[in-house]
Amino acid sequence: MNSIDTILEYIYGSNDFVVTSHVNPDGDNIGSTLSIYYFLKQINKNVYYVMNDEMPLNMQFLIEDTNIINSNEFRELNIKNYNLIALDCGDSNRICIDDEIKNKCLKLINIDHHASNDFYGDLNYVISDASSTCELVYDILIRNEDINNTKTIDKKIATALYTGLMTDTGKLTYSNTHASSFDMAKNLLILGAETQIVVQNVFGSNPYNFYKLLGEALNTLEVVNTKIAIMIVTQDMLKKFNIDFKDIDGIVPYARDIKNVEVGILLKEKENNEIKVSLRSKFYADVSKIAKKFGGGGHIRAAGCTINDTIDNAKKKIIEETLKEI
Amino acid sequence: MNSIDTILEYIYGSNDFVVTSHVNPDGDNIGSTLSIYYFLKQINKNVYYVMNDEMPLNMQFLIEDTNIINSNEFRELNIKNYNLIALDCGDSNRICIDDEIKNKCLKLINIDHHASNDFYGDLNYVISDASSTCELVYDILIRNEDINNTKTIDKKIATALYTGLMTDTGKLTYSNTHASSFDMAKNLLILGAETQIVVQNVFGSNPYNFYKLLGEALNTLEVVNTKIAIMIVTQDMLKKFNIDFKDIDGIVPYARDIKNVEVGILLKEKENNEIKVSLRSKFYADVSKIAKKFGGGGHIRAAGCTINDTIDNAKKKIIEETLKEI
Repeated sequence: MNSIDTILEYIYGSNDFVVTSHVNPDGDNIGSTLSIYYFLKQINKNVYYVMNDEMPLNMQFLIEDTNIINSNEFRELNIKNYNLIALDCGDSNRICIDDEIKNKCLKLINIDHHASNDFYGDLNYVISDASSTCELVYDILIRNEDINNTKTIDKKIATALYTGLMTDTGKLTYSNTHASSFDMAKNLLILGAETQIVVQNVFGSNPYNFYKLLGEALNTLEVVNTKIAIMIVTQDMLKKFNIDFKDIDGIVPYARDIKNVEVGILLKEKENNEIKVSLRSKFYADVSKIAKKFGGGGHIRAAGCTINDTIDNAKKKIIEETLKEI
Repeated sequence: MNSIDTILEYIYGSNDFVVTSHVNPDGDNIGSTLSIYYFLKQINKNVYYVMNDEMPLNMQFLIEDTNIINSNEFRELNIKNYNLIALDCGDSNRICIDDEIKNKCLKLINIDHHASNDFYGDLNYVISDASSTCELVYDILIRNEDINNTKTIDKKIATALYTGLMTDTGKLTYSNTHASSFDMAKNLLILGAETQIVVQNVFGSNPYNFYKLLGEALNTLEVVNTKIAIMIVTQDMLKKFNIDFKDIDGIVPYARDIKNVEVGILLKEKENNEIKVSLRSKFYADVSKIAKKFGGGGHIRAAGCTINDTIDNAKKKIIEETLKEI
């Protein structure tokens, strides 16, 4: 693990950067990646935001003025001697660019808060009990302000960081919310973060059909052994309501937030025999352990994995492993 | 309007108190009333928590060790010369005790954050842009700590105040969330507030049947003129799922949080021809104005009223008035 100062020193001494985050992007990795991207632009570095995946609908407001390119587009630019900054990637395999671009970088800088992170970077700033990767980027940028006696966190950066903080802490309610998280929220508000724009776009702009889908998903809600609740979203349901697979993560908490339930599970049928599983827990169950048994990962209270089987079999398997953990 | 110091001085100079809050209690008024109740006990006053209404299920964890009595029980105690502290009551008619008890008090102390509050107390501490009445009580108790060089906010009070702050700000996301609200959340966490207990009880302990009811309510979801969304919960739906009328306030945000919708409306059929209307807005509509037209009230972004008519007619009337406001 390296200090913030070492990382800042390396950044200031280099010229070209690729920034990216993990596959299936969410608020924290988009917020943290955008913030580092804006910071590098501020200090006159050449920087490319490269990502293969598409943004969820409710995050698109953040990137309206940002040029994000995919791996092919980056290759065509024929950039040499670039550094790669990976934000919020718990595992180097989850970095959302082609392996070739990953492997050819001068140095890989790994900034993350996943407990599973094995310090895969050449430079690493990994703190697993941080609320969010955005909180780590916030600490880096605040330190930059201190060292260089400059103003770094402008309205755009404050808004991006606020997005990641609010999404990864469940609006400052999850157990990863520390005193420092409230301090950060307060300071971002003072620095001009567009908090209402964030809240309304991220949490308050669901398509009408999303709620129709939610209604059908709630019909599948089932409580097993009082402590586990499970819900299903099939391909047919997604098609019927014309909702994209990447836009249904908001459904997971409904399984968790039932009285006496410890673990909430959402099974999402991405393709036939490709079931994406989202796991959430309340008080004590370590769902990252359950996810790991199926080759997945994540945090203690929020994790995910893929089961290549039918929905019915995936359901049986995940319930069986969850029962062992609670 | 009186200063905190005047109010504290009066409290210290008196002996007997009744504390109460508004009809249909919610997190903020229970949290603020309990905090004042615990504070008065701490400084050795005689205090009675009197309230006619029942607690919502998701707030009962807060009052497990507290003796709350109704107006009849209080009358039987035959207490004379008591002061009444009304918390979070925007209107003296909403104070949740019998008029007789209200009228016979020595002094009425009115602590509230509703814009509609007309300073009906003998002593008034009313700040309409405060996030919550709990934030006002927090300021009073912090001031008490300063003046009297004492520790007032213990774990129980911190937990109660945190509950009101989180419920009245929608987990620190509504536009009434100020820098001071984040400071308060941080300090309460440091002072030992049981934040996870609060979050799981208030937001994460829905009965299984609540979600079944939500599924049916979502079937009624309708968007009018792109800016208004309306949902209905009938007596039949409540009966079918055995959910009590007081436990369905969590459904309102589903109407508001749709893309492009400005005002979300939930119609709740309490009795035949008694339709309780909850209104929420996002950016600009003042829903308290709409509620006022039907004799109700509330805040700019959250308000309520009653329409004594059939559901269909209530729906027509409320849509008509809402269209004028947006």
